[in-house]
Amino acid sequence: MGGTRSWWGWGHVEDAVGGAELDTLLRRVRAALPDAELTGHRPPPVASLGLPPSRAVVPDALAPLCSTEPGDRAAHARGKAFRDVVRNLHGDLASVPDLVARPRHERDVVAVLEWCTGRDYAVIPYGGGSSVVGGVEPRFDGHPAVVTLDLERLDRVVEVDTISRAARVQAGVLGPHLEDQLRPHGLTLRHFPQSFAFSTLGGWLATRAGGHYATVLTHIDELTESLRVVTPSGISASRRLPGSGAGPSPDRLFLGSEGTLGVITEAWMRVRPRPRWKAAASVHFETWPAAVAATRDVAQSGLDPANCRLLDAGEAFLNADVAVGGGVLVLGFESADHPVDAPLRRAVELARAHGGTVPAGRGRSAGRDGGDAIPDEAGAGAERAWRAAFLRMPYQRDALARHGMIVETFETACTWDRFDALHHAITEAATGALRAVAGAGVVTCRFTHVYPDGPAPYYGVYAPGRWGSTVAQWDEIKAAVSEAIVAHGGTITHHHAVGRDHRPWYDRQRPDPFAAALTAAKSALDPAGILNPGVLLPAR
Amino acid sequence: MGGTRSWWGWGHVEDAVGGAELDTLLRRVRAALPDAELTGHRPPPVASLGLPPSRAVVPDALAPLCSTEPGDRAAHARGKAFRDVVRNLHGDLASVPDLVARPRHERDVVAVLEWCTGRDYAVIPYGGGSSVVGGVEPRFDGHPAVVTLDLERLDRVVEVDTISRAARVQAGVLGPHLEDQLRPHGLTLRHFPQSFAFSTLGGWLATRAGGHYATVLTHIDELTESLRVVTPSGISASRRLPGSGAGPSPDRLFLGSEGTLGVITEAWMRVRPRPRWKAAASVHFETWPAAVAATRDVAQSGLDPANCRLLDAGEAFLNADVAVGGGVLVLGFESADHPVDAPLRRAVELARAHGGTVPAGRGRSAGRDGGDAIPDEAGAGAERAWRAAFLRMPYQRDALARHGMIVETFETACTWDRFDALHHAITEAATGALRAVAGAGVVTCRFTHVYPDGPAPYYGVYAPGRWGSTVAQWDEIKAAVSEAIVAHGGTITHHHAVGRDHRPWYDRQRPDPFAAALTAAKSALDPAGILNPGVLLPAR
Repeated sequence: MGGTRSWWGWGHVEDAVGGAELDTLLRRVRAALPDAELTGHRPPPVASLGLPPSRAVVPDALAPLCSTEPGDRAAHARGKAFRDVVRNLHGDLASVPDLVARPRHERDVVAVLEWCTGRDYAVIPYGGGSSVVGGVEPRFDGHPAVVTLDLERLDRVVEVDTISRAARVQAGVLGPHLEDQLRPHGLTLRHFPQSFAFSTLGGWLATRAGGHYATVLTHIDELTESLRVVTPSGISASRRLPGSGAGPSPDRLFLGSEGTLGVITEAWMRVRPRPRWKAAASVHFETWPAAVAATRDVAQSGLDPANCRLLDAGEAFLNADVAVGGGVLVLGFESADHPVDAPLRRAVELARAHGGTVPAGRGRSAGRDGGDAIPDEAGAGAERAWRAAFLRMPYQRDALARHGMIVETFETACTWDRFDALHHAITEAATGALRAVAGAGVVTCRFTHVYPDGPAPYYGVYAPGRWGSTVAQWDEIKAAVSEAIVAHGGTITHHHAVGRDHRPWYDRQRPDPFAAALTAAKSALDPAGILNPGVLLPAR
Repeated sequence: MGGTRSWWGWGHVEDAVGGAELDTLLRRVRAALPDAELTGHRPPPVASLGLPPSRAVVPDALAPLCSTEPGDRAAHARGKAFRDVVRNLHGDLASVPDLVARPRHERDVVAVLEWCTGRDYAVIPYGGGSSVVGGVEPRFDGHPAVVTLDLERLDRVVEVDTISRAARVQAGVLGPHLEDQLRPHGLTLRHFPQSFAFSTLGGWLATRAGGHYATVLTHIDELTESLRVVTPSGISASRRLPGSGAGPSPDRLFLGSEGTLGVITEAWMRVRPRPRWKAAASVHFETWPAAVAATRDVAQSGLDPANCRLLDAGEAFLNADVAVGGGVLVLGFESADHPVDAPLRRAVELARAHGGTVPAGRGRSAGRDGGDAIPDEAGAGAERAWRAAFLRMPYQRDALARHGMIVETFETACTWDRFDALHHAITEAATGALRAVAGAGVVTCRFTHVYPDGPAPYYGVYAPGRWGSTVAQWDEIKAAVSEAIVAHGGTITHHHAVGRDHRPWYDRQRPDPFAAALTAAKSALDPAGILNPGVLLPAR
C-alpha cells in the first residue's frame, strides 16, 4: 500500500489514472456527454503556491512535533471533495494551516491543546484528511493561528481481547494498517468505507462513518465499545461495556462531534472473526419501482444481509458494466459461523416476487472464503465489477476533474414512505441545476445502506464543466439538491458528516433545543472555542 | 387488563398474591430459608398516612389537570422497588408530591413547565411509575413545591406508516394499550420489559429500557426513529430518519435523560409484523462455566436469537421449576418472514459442543404462530414456566415483602473477559452482605441480554429480613454489590436506569468531561433546574 501521498488529490501519486485507463475513461465520457471539452490540466507545483508564512509561535518542547513545510501545509489545507481537489488544481490555497502537529502519544495531544488554548490558536483534528464536507479546512480565520493536529503517529492496535472480541486501537491508524494488525489474531473490524485506504479510525468515529454492513450495524457507532477523548477540559474515558442504560450514552455525544468537542485518541472496537462463508447474488429488474419495492422487502425481512446494494440503471452501466432497465440489487451474506445459502435463497425469492431475475452464469455464488482485508464479496459478477470500480472511483474523479468535468456525489437517508417523492425531487433538482449550469449531465443513484424503515440513497453527478468555474457550478448543483433533501424529509448526510459545507442545511434539520444543548456542551468542554471552529456550530 | 392500581405495591389490587398461591410461595421459602419469620403485614390505609397539605399554588387554567387527592399523591410518591414498597407498607411517606398534573395534550405539558419554571416548582415526569431506582421520588426538597407530571392521558397511537413500518405514539401509553392499538395493523413494537403492563413508552425511552430481544436490538434506543421532547426552553422535534450521520444524535441525548432535560411527549417507533415462525429450545448444563461458554458462543455466532436467556441453577429451580447442576440456556428464534428452525439447530449445536443437553419431551419446538401481545415463546417447557413466573414475580415480591422478606434484584453488563471475576465478586459481596445483615439468603443469576462482547447478568436476592429493618438491610446489600460492580468493570445499570439510587456509582463510572457536558446541556434546556432534581445530576 506504499506510495507518495498526493498533496492535491486522492491517494497515491503513483496510482493516478493515466495511459490506457485514462483513454478509456475519456472515451466513455465523450460517448455520454459529447459536448464535454476534456482538456487536461496539471496540478501546480507546491513551490508556486506562495503560501503565507506560518503565524504560529511554537514552544520548544513541542517543536519536534511541528512541521511548517509548505507541501505539508498545502496537503492539510482541506479534504478530498471535488471542490477541494479543483481548488487545489487551480492553486487556490487562500487558507492553509499555519503548521501541522503530529503527536507521538496522548500526552502530546494534551500538550498541544494546552498550548493552543493558551494562545487562542484554532486546532483542527485530522485523521486521513478524506473529508468531503470541509471538515478539516481552516475556513473561518478568527484565531491568531491555525494548527492542524494530524494523528498519523497514533497508529497502533494496543490490545486485543479475543474473549470479548474487542480491540483497543489508536485513533490515527489508517484502514489497511488496522486490518494488518488484526489479521494475525484472525480478527477484523470489517468497516470499509470507500475512503478505507486513506481514512482513519478516529475520523470514522468523529464523523459516524458508514461501513461495510448494508443493514443493522451500518455506522461505526455500533462497532464502538468505548472511547478515549482528550478535551481541553480533561480526558473523557468511557467504560468498556457491551451495553448500558446508565444515563445518556457518553460515547454518542462524541460520535459525530467532528473534532469540535475533543480529540479522539483511542477506542475499544468490536471486532469479529474473518468470514468463512459467503453467498452473493445479483438480481436484475426491468423497472426502478420494482427494484425499490424488492429492496424494501429484503430490508424488512429480518434476513439482514451484509450487502444489499441497489444500483439504478445509470450506476449499473457506468460502474458495474451491466445494461439493465430498472436496476441491479446486489445481495451478499457472510458468516464466520455457519453457511449462508438459505438466507440468500430467501432474499432472492423476495426479489423475484417483484419481477427480479438472476442472470445465468454471473448471478449467484456461494462458498467458503478466507476473508479479505479489502471487501470482495464472493462471486456475483456485478458486485465484483462494482467493487473494483468502487475503489478506483476517487482516482477517476480526480482525472475527470483535471479535464474540466464536474464529478461529485452526495447522499441522504429517509423513510420508505417518503423515498419516491424525495428521489423525484432530488433528481429534478439535480437535472435542472445541471441543465442550468452545464447544459447537460448524468445523475445516478444507488442505495449504500438500507434499514427496515428506509433507504440511504447515494447519488453521482457527472457533467461537462467550464474550467475555472467548476467549483461554482458544483456549488449551485449542491445547493439545489440539498434544498430538495431537507424539504422532503431526508437527512443532509447519512455518512459524509456535516463539516462546514453542510452547515446551512444541518442547522435546519437539527432541533433548536439540541443545538442549544450542543453549544452548551462545547462551551463546557472547549471553553476557549479552539476546536474545529465553524464545524457543526457557528465559528465565533 | 382492568383493575384497581395499588397505591403501595405492584400492579392491580385484584391480582395480589393470596390463597393457595401464597401458601405455596411461603412453603417454598420456608423450605429454602427455615429461619424466615414470615409474619404477614397489611398496607396502611391511605387515610392514615397523614400527608402534608399541598404547597402548590395552581393557576385556574391548569386546575382541571391537577389532583391533590391523598391517594393520588401517595401513589405517585415513589416507584416500585423493594425499598419503595416496604416504605409504603410502613406508612413512611415523608416526601410526597404536592400535586399530580395530568396533561391532556402537549400544550398542557408546555403550560405546566412554564408555570413550574415561573414558581420554581420541581417537576417529576411520570409514566407508569415502575422505576426501581428512585427515579420518580421527590427526595430532595429544594423547591417550594413538587409537581408530578403524569402522562397517562397521552396514550394514543396517532399515526401508523405501514410502508416504513413505523408508528407515531404518545409517550404516556402503557405497554398493553400500545400493543392493542398496533394489533389491527398487524404490527407490534415487540418491546416487553418485565414491567410491560405498568410502564409506558415515555418511561422506556427516558430510561433506555431493555426489552424483548436478547441480542442486537436490546434497548428501546434501537427501536426509536425520532423523538418529540418538551423542554423548558422549547420543543425538540427530531426528524424521522432510518439512519443519519449528521452530528451527534439528538435522540441519544434524550434517550436515558430520565426526565432531567425535558418531557418526551411522543415518538416515532420502529414496529414490525407480528412473528409467524418461532422455534425455541432449552439446553441444560452440568456446570455454570460450560453454560456461560456456550452462551458466549451463541452470542458471538451472528445467529442473533430473539431469546438467549441463561438461568443459573438457582434461577432455574426457583422460577422455572427445573433441577439442573449448572444452568439452563433458553433459546428462541422468531420471524415474520421465514422459518427459523435452521438457526435454532445451529445454536443448539453450539451449546451441545459445551456439553449441553436438550431434555427429551420438553426441550424443543418450532412452528407457526400468530404472535401474542404478551411474550410467549412457542414450546420450550422451561421457557414457558419461566415466562409465567416472570410476570408474577413483582406480585410475589410484594407478598414476600409483606412477610418481612428481603426480595430484590439488580443487574449490570460487562465484557466477557471480565465476567468470571465480576460474577465472583458480586456473588461474594452479596452472600457476605446477606450473612451480615440477615444470617442467610439466596442469590440467583440469569442473563437477560447477551452481546458479542459481553453479557448482561441479572441477580435475584432472597433473604429473611427483620420487619421494620428490611430497607436498611437491603440498602447494605445493595451498596456492597454496587461497589463490586463498579470495581470490576460493570455498569451500575444495563436497563434499570440511574435515578437517585444509583447516583453514587453512576458518578464514578461516568467520565467527568461528559458530566460537565451533561450539566451544561441541562442548564441550557432547563435553566431553572426544575426537572427531576437529583436524578443523574446533583440536586441544587
